Amino acid sequence: MRNVSVNSVLITPLKKIEVIGGDIMHGLKKTDNGFKDFGEIYFSIIKRDSIKAWKRHLQMTLNLVVPVGYVQFAFIDNNGNIREELVGQDRYVRLTIPPLIWFGFKGLYKYDSIVMNVADMVHNDSEVERRELKSFNFLWRKLR
Amino acid sequence: MRNVSVNSVLITPLKKIEVIGGDIMHGLKKTDNGFKDFGEIYFSIIKRDSIKAWKRHLQMTLNLVVPVGYVQFAFIDNNGNIREELVGQDRYVRLTIPPLIWFGFKGLYKYDSIVMNVADMVHNDSEVERRELKSFNFLWRKLR
Repeated sequence: MRNVSVNSVLITPLKKIEVIGGDIMHGLKKTDNGFKDFGEIYFSIIKRDSIKAWKRHLQMTLNLVVPVGYVQFAFIDNNGNIREELVGQDRYVRLTIPPLIWFGFKGLYKYDSIVMNVADMVHNDSEVERRELKSFNFLWRKLR
Repeated sequence: MRNVSVNSVLITPLKKIEVIGGDIMHGLKKTDNGFKDFGEIYFSIIKRDSIKAWKRHLQMTLNLVVPVGYVQFAFIDNNGNIREELVGQDRYVRLTIPPLIWFGFKGLYKYDSIVMNVADMVHNDSEVERRELKSFNFLWRKLR
């Protein structure tokens, strides 16, 4: 199995453009750093204090944006290195997650948070690995 | 100028998949009806009772999804035909808007609504035409 470090998770600041009636918020351009291909886009809602973990993809690269709410992400690589990132409307960035990184996320907003994923391939369950929440020795510290 | 009818605006129902911790909401697959190419994805916030209108694209095809809130869309074609669609979390569909259709939209949710656009090309202001809100004889009837 290739070794992919949690350091390879890419963080790209995104622009919000002020518009009367409601802002425009950038997401992903095909010319952007981190873009590989377009396969599918979907939303994953995450409720307050709920955790979705753990999952990793063997082939898919994910581009994640949180336009609503606050989400705590955790990443773990094959060497057991851990990385945490808190992203959302006050830290409006895109996370690019390469294959082979274990990840999970927790909703920290008082309402539902929304994670948008622009994936470079259409969902295919055979390239997804899952583990139980407790299968890593990771503490979901309160970051917010 | 080619004639494109408001009837060519495509409406595609989208799936929500119930998941503990927060639902998964489909958006757009590259194999879906209405998908032409991937250029850019961005969000347009629309505040309650605010209207963004009118705009049309000469080249871009838009794929619009409203994951949060309720948005009233209005479409006008070269022959002056009008079409209205109310979409949002209770009517979770994708709107595919071909070039040359004038469109505008109004926020009907008590909070901000979010319109996601998956465009088949990167934004290029030279292919966008704009008109003042009052330039069409259109009444934003209260649909909700």
